[in-house]
Amino acid sequence: MSSHNDSNPLLEVVAGNGLLHRRLFLTNGAALLGAGSVGLLTARPAGAEPLEIPPWMKTPGAHMSAYGQPSRFEADVQRVVGGTPNVVGSGVSFTPHHRLHGTITPNSLHFERHHSGVPDIDPEAHRLLIHGAVRRPLTFTVDNLLRYPTVTRIQFLECSGNSGTNLNPQPPQAPCGVIHGLMSCSEWTGVPLAILMEEAGVDRTAGWVIAEGADAAAMSRSVPLAKIMDDAIVALYQNGERLRPENGYPMRLFLPGWEGNMSVKWLRRLKVVSEATMTRDETSHYTDVLLNGKALIFTYPMRVKSIITSPSTGLALQGPGVYEVTGLAWSGLGKIVRVEVSADGGRSWADAALAEPVLAKSFTRFRMAWRWSGGPAVLMSRAIDDTGAVQPTRASLVREHGERMNYHNNGIQAWSVAADGGVSNVYA
Amino acid sequence: MSSHNDSNPLLEVVAGNGLLHRRLFLTNGAALLGAGSVGLLTARPAGAEPLEIPPWMKTPGAHMSAYGQPSRFEADVQRVVGGTPNVVGSGVSFTPHHRLHGTITPNSLHFERHHSGVPDIDPEAHRLLIHGAVRRPLTFTVDNLLRYPTVTRIQFLECSGNSGTNLNPQPPQAPCGVIHGLMSCSEWTGVPLAILMEEAGVDRTAGWVIAEGADAAAMSRSVPLAKIMDDAIVALYQNGERLRPENGYPMRLFLPGWEGNMSVKWLRRLKVVSEATMTRDETSHYTDVLLNGKALIFTYPMRVKSIITSPSTGLALQGPGVYEVTGLAWSGLGKIVRVEVSADGGRSWADAALAEPVLAKSFTRFRMAWRWSGGPAVLMSRAIDDTGAVQPTRASLVREHGERMNYHNNGIQAWSVAADGGVSNVYA
Repeated sequence: MSSHNDSNPLLEVVAGNGLLHRRLFLTNGAALLGAGSVGLLTARPAGAEPLEIPPWMKTPGAHMSAYGQPSRFEADVQRVVGGTPNVVGSGVSFTPHHRLHGTITPNSLHFERHHSGVPDIDPEAHRLLIHGAVRRPLTFTVDNLLRYPTVTRIQFLECSGNSGTNLNPQPPQAPCGVIHGLMSCSEWTGVPLAILMEEAGVDRTAGWVIAEGADAAAMSRSVPLAKIMDDAIVALYQNGERLRPENGYPMRLFLPGWEGNMSVKWLRRLKVVSEATMTRDETSHYTDVLLNGKALIFTYPMRVKSIITSPSTGLALQGPGVYEVTGLAWSGLGKIVRVEVSADGGRSWADAALAEPVLAKSFTRFRMAWRWSGGPAVLMSRAIDDTGAVQPTRASLVREHGERMNYHNNGIQAWSVAADGGVSNVYA
Repeated sequence: MSSHNDSNPLLEVVAGNGLLHRRLFLTNGAALLGAGSVGLLTARPAGAEPLEIPPWMKTPGAHMSAYGQPSRFEADVQRVVGGTPNVVGSGVSFTPHHRLHGTITPNSLHFERHHSGVPDIDPEAHRLLIHGAVRRPLTFTVDNLLRYPTVTRIQFLECSGNSGTNLNPQPPQAPCGVIHGLMSCSEWTGVPLAILMEEAGVDRTAGWVIAEGADAAAMSRSVPLAKIMDDAIVALYQNGERLRPENGYPMRLFLPGWEGNMSVKWLRRLKVVSEATMTRDETSHYTDVLLNGKALIFTYPMRVKSIITSPSTGLALQGPGVYEVTGLAWSGLGKIVRVEVSADGGRSWADAALAEPVLAKSFTRFRMAWRWSGGPAVLMSRAIDDTGAVQPTRASLVREHGERMNYHNNGIQAWSVAADGGVSNVYA
């Protein structure tokens, strides 16, 4: 089905099992196309049958609307909700990354992790208190904060439990978004905490800040003061509009690159203290069990990671031919500098194209062209960040931690493609 | 109320009537803050009264949800719908920029301009035909297109009629979003048209392409083939999810930087031809009347422009003190390189801080600190792009076109601040 000309530079094979050079995805890659047949792409119904006039062209459509919603034909593009049965408000919902494209996550599909549900907060009644080791304890209303200087940044948020089911003994056969959907990426706008802390007269020798949320769990975490003074914000807007309730309306802490649980939602209190407080959620949860039974705590930055979102479980290939292999890469420590893709289970790798702009602590969309022959294939991606860190294999993480690790799984994801085009999750 | 120390470098006055240096907004501007009182910001309730436990902390909150919605307390953040009375589907809705912050426009609030309403298109039944001066006329389904290489870019879309009411003899006293809300900015993901055109075997000597939509108006525009081959895409995703119905679901043409009407929604046909077709919407509409009664046609790129979104009409100042002056700047010809702000009606100007990343043909958020003395002030912003183009005054546009120009008004917006803090639209 695939007609191609091997002298076409777009068809240069750069790694085993059909991976093609990324130049098709680079700026004006299309300019490389010569006049005439591209011959690269296979799904191409020929013909120029007269276009029928569809029914929706025969009568005026719907009027303008105040707040738009998706097409009814996209109603199944939803978060997948998981939770403890019969416990309202405790659980998760996953971003369906296998149905999305680009890098921004729509607010309606941002992942959720709540410990006691989503509070319905009246913004007029909400207060943020900054106290403890400060010269002037201060209380802020939403309106107060709206007077302050703001910053805007596109950054990811990832639950440290994301991808945790890939540590199960058997690989879960679930869509990509259900395995890896406890992460999302938004444009956040808010007030730098350094400004508010200086206004309160923070004692810079104090080492920690306790952040507390206004949910029924009073979610609390200890945050190093250095992080608060570096790049932490009180976020007020997400993708242009005010925060959604499930993302902390009317305000949340946002700690770029760090495990999601620390970016305390519905932020009501920041207490400056000298020591970490060992709250429930930094002892019973969010720690990394080691082989010897001890656990690491305070492992905050989310490490370099990538996943292929398509093809992935449930997105079957439609016969041999050329496909876009695409996914997301990110690092809580900086920028992505390279993503490599393998189609032969890690035996050979080639560089993917990275979509500009590549931003620190943000999702980077990567793309690769792949000509699937119809034979068996195992697709993997491996990200490298600007600290030089390389995404590890699952096997190396298991060697280090065993399979009892619940958090911080940044191991390489492998998708196996069968002869019928079906895709499954494998540990490779 | 404002206590300040004039030796504080954050308080350096850089232009008339209280404009302060932008360094507060630059990376780690907060690092400039010394220990102790900042003294920059005025809205700062002192005190540390014990925080009450609000009712929403006393009972579990709502469960996770499949597709989230805004807080009920934000229900008035809506598009403002305008249209021809009793004509369903013909009209506009405006993005409420005065209620938003950042650069991304949420999909639910993206502006609308429809000529015969929003069609309810079944994506399985939709077809895109490429024909005319091509060797192989081709028909594409949505599923076909999803096999093709994609690109992702954050870019604005602006209706050429945006800001048109500011050409009225008297300045409209409406919110910023109603005057300037026919523009929005999204992350668009789609297939480069150069690839599809080469696949069809386009005759590169043909000069034009007619683009036709599948709405009841069969919206049609002539597009230069050079633009199609340069950076045009068939957009399939907007801010991560599939296009919304009012933005062309299941597919639209997207022409970066060009007047919005040409980015034909619900795209069904691209016919390659030798001459522009003089369709209804490029003759009776979307042309620029000159003083002599003749009209310019084919004035496609949206020129360099900026608006201050806050303060603006309806967002009254709450007494003397320091405020963030912020807004959006963009150019259909490239990147923004500078935005200048004036607080004295254009007598003196100073550079605003630009939020990174500054992207071509995209919104750039600018910010300026301003200490309002309580006296009269006129706030203006002026953008400059990387072609060297400078945003013109309204007066210079009126000298050139008269007040009969309906489109392409990129004149400087002026907001007058009264002693009571009220803000109004003025021609200054």
